[in-house]
Amino acid sequence: MEKRVLELFTDKKFAELKDVLARINPPDLAVAFEELDKKDTLILFRLLPKELAADTFIEMESDTQQKLLEAFSDKEIKAVFDEIFIDDTVDIIEEMPATVVKRILKLSDAETRKSINEILAYPEDSAGSIMTTEYVDLKKHLTVEQAFARIRKNGVDKETIYTCYVTDARRKLIGVVTVRELLLSDYNDRIEDIMETNVLFANTLDDREAVVQMFDKYDILALPIVDNESRLVGIVTVDDAIDVLQEEVTEDIERMAAITPTDKPYLKTGVFEIFKSRIPWLLILMISATFTGLIITRFEDALVTFTALTAFIPMLMNTAGNAGSQASVTVIRGLSLGEIKFSDIFRIVFKEFRVSLLAGAALSVANFIKIWAFDIVVLKSDISLLEAAVVCITIFVSVLFSKIVGCALPILAKKLRLEPEVMASPFITTIVDVLVLMVYFTIAHLLLM
Amino acid sequence: MEKRVLELFTDKKFAELKDVLARINPPDLAVAFEELDKKDTLILFRLLPKELAADTFIEMESDTQQKLLEAFSDKEIKAVFDEIFIDDTVDIIEEMPATVVKRILKLSDAETRKSINEILAYPEDSAGSIMTTEYVDLKKHLTVEQAFARIRKNGVDKETIYTCYVTDARRKLIGVVTVRELLLSDYNDRIEDIMETNVLFANTLDDREAVVQMFDKYDILALPIVDNESRLVGIVTVDDAIDVLQEEVTEDIERMAAITPTDKPYLKTGVFEIFKSRIPWLLILMISATFTGLIITRFEDALVTFTALTAFIPMLMNTAGNAGSQASVTVIRGLSLGEIKFSDIFRIVFKEFRVSLLAGAALSVANFIKIWAFDIVVLKSDISLLEAAVVCITIFVSVLFSKIVGCALPILAKKLRLEPEVMASPFITTIVDVLVLMVYFTIAHLLLM
Repeated sequence: MEKRVLELFTDKKFAELKDVLARINPPDLAVAFEELDKKDTLILFRLLPKELAADTFIEMESDTQQKLLEAFSDKEIKAVFDEIFIDDTVDIIEEMPATVVKRILKLSDAETRKSINEILAYPEDSAGSIMTTEYVDLKKHLTVEQAFARIRKNGVDKETIYTCYVTDARRKLIGVVTVRELLLSDYNDRIEDIMETNVLFANTLDDREAVVQMFDKYDILALPIVDNESRLVGIVTVDDAIDVLQEEVTEDIERMAAITPTDKPYLKTGVFEIFKSRIPWLLILMISATFTGLIITRFEDALVTFTALTAFIPMLMNTAGNAGSQASVTVIRGLSLGEIKFSDIFRIVFKEFRVSLLAGAALSVANFIKIWAFDIVVLKSDISLLEAAVVCITIFVSVLFSKIVGCALPILAKKLRLEPEVMASPFITTIVDVLVLMVYFTIAHLLLM
Repeated sequence: MEKRVLELFTDKKFAELKDVLARINPPDLAVAFEELDKKDTLILFRLLPKELAADTFIEMESDTQQKLLEAFSDKEIKAVFDEIFIDDTVDIIEEMPATVVKRILKLSDAETRKSINEILAYPEDSAGSIMTTEYVDLKKHLTVEQAFARIRKNGVDKETIYTCYVTDARRKLIGVVTVRELLLSDYNDRIEDIMETNVLFANTLDDREAVVQMFDKYDILALPIVDNESRLVGIVTVDDAIDVLQEEVTEDIERMAAITPTDKPYLKTGVFEIFKSRIPWLLILMISATFTGLIITRFEDALVTFTALTAFIPMLMNTAGNAGSQASVTVIRGLSLGEIKFSDIFRIVFKEFRVSLLAGAALSVANFIKIWAFDIVVLKSDISLLEAAVVCITIFVSVLFSKIVGCALPILAKKLRLEPEVMASPFITTIVDVLVLMVYFTIAHLLLM
């Protein structure tokens, strides 16, 4: 549909374009803007009806937003920001240069400006930084009828009206009532009689990841955010929680791949920025990996005598690394879903121990058959059955080691308040490589020399 | 809080227990049940008020559900399933043995039974399999007042009342109207005048992952699901979409770590099941990795002459493997978020090419300094500067290769309708290992012999 918009726009078929614009959704329309130059971006934007314009603006990439903001008149800036919610305004502001931010703040009314500055002041990744201050608040002495009147009057500007928050005179949160309950209650019922006083909430300074987990666990549409005096200061809605969830997952996955998380989409990130997010761990892991070299050098004599042994080193390292990564990634995901706690560590190690006995045995046997049937019979390699045994025993022992290291390290990291995701594949592989070589040479020494 | 429940229950302090139960949330209470034996599970469950009992039942692990269902009277089964939504019933039924399923179906009314069987018949991972059939439907000729009357009358049993669906006489979906719009409209307005006719929907057979992406993209609370004749058959609500999102992420992460996804939480999965989900890829990757052995064997003579070269093999493989994984994981995540399309492949390869020039140069230089300052000066190793150059050039070339292989393979896999996640770390590592060895020995051959 976004292609059709561009076609009609380029061909100046504005009557047909209007029809298409009436049926398009803002996220799709935003994609069309990415294809236009600065002048056309502004022309197309000015063709949009006010509400669609604002909703599409939110969905654009931040460089397109900046292009538009720099070209907008004061009136146009006001028109856009009057339509959108404060949390979206904050998201946009965070990506803009200071001159643009100043202009937006200058054009906001005093109350909005205050809210924006409050939200901007919360630490990154805190609940406060992702909340909005636009919610419906009710008083406990209101009747259902009065509550509906209040929602009708004020609800139009609120991010959600479906959950209403009941506060006392000092703005302390004392209950919630949903529109569903209001609709199913009598018009004369009082809010205090139907409100739920067992309220789920988070503090402004809580980690946003914890907030998102509450949405997942309790199936809620919005979560109230309170300050240290239990006063209601904002809410987080489920659509924003999903965005945060996706961002957190991306960060976890990046950390697991030894990347320092950035919060920009890949195609929008510059080459140097990508380089900066990747090089630190590559360097650390490369330097750590040179320790394997020291071990190999120490056992050089053995390798010169039994030349066949060298050929198996990469396979042994890979297999143990994969076995360890499987365990670590499973545990990391369990930790981030809240399924695994520190107290489960012994159960998990015991479980991985048993899994590794099975996996180690299966892999050793498969490898022994492969060496015998392929290397010795088909390729006529000069590897002896005793050397094959050294390889297979090493597989068994190192799968055992690496599964246990793989499952234990993320749990220990979490306990030490480090990111468990860092204990994924690249890190585990480096540790496991050292273990594998020590096991390999020890067993070779015992059986061959 | 769940610990307090168990304490009070064990101490038989039932009055205090009642207080705590009034304040606890079902997902937390469900955790308490995991600690009890069969008899106590049933006793505690019977202490709960009807609605809390049903909500907690949904949140329990399936073996606890099964224990309870086997102990329940017919009346108790009916009491639980009358309270819960059909999609939750289906989720429970899918995990139960045939005898239990038969009993649940026998005790349901005819209409519910029909809905359950319909949902069960949809393919796993389809939109139909995660929907519920309990939604509010309206007719276009109704007034807002009549619509509210209908919601008040029927809404109590519906999973969401906030989005209402307008259907024609043949049950075709013709519009949606939200309670927000109803509340902000005049009582005498007609539904057909206020409904949104530009409706987002999915087909029963669409992939559930696509459904979840629509929630992320369009910020919706519910999505209507239609059959091939555009008739409305159910809806998916945002809380279920979040659950599916989390499951899909877990599956993606498992595939990236060479694990066949299972849908059970780790601690609830048996040792043999875990073994089965991990061994296929371990075997495939182990056998693939033996190819590296063939290459090493071919270059045995070089390794015996230049013994220092062997020591660098693991470090070279690790570094290239990590560099490739970074690229592949970034692209895989971009694909699953819908940020990257097949047509972006050349842009991405060119971007990774430039990133790899920077990363390769930085790593080569760091490594040269390390060999010179540490290995030669400190350890007095007998490695020559020419050998060091071979190692550093190999790093540069193999980082370049592995970044490009790493970013291109997931996109090609997606194009071929394979799972791009499989092209993550373990698979890339195996391919990259072969590349690294070939590059290493070629460069060694050119410079040293």
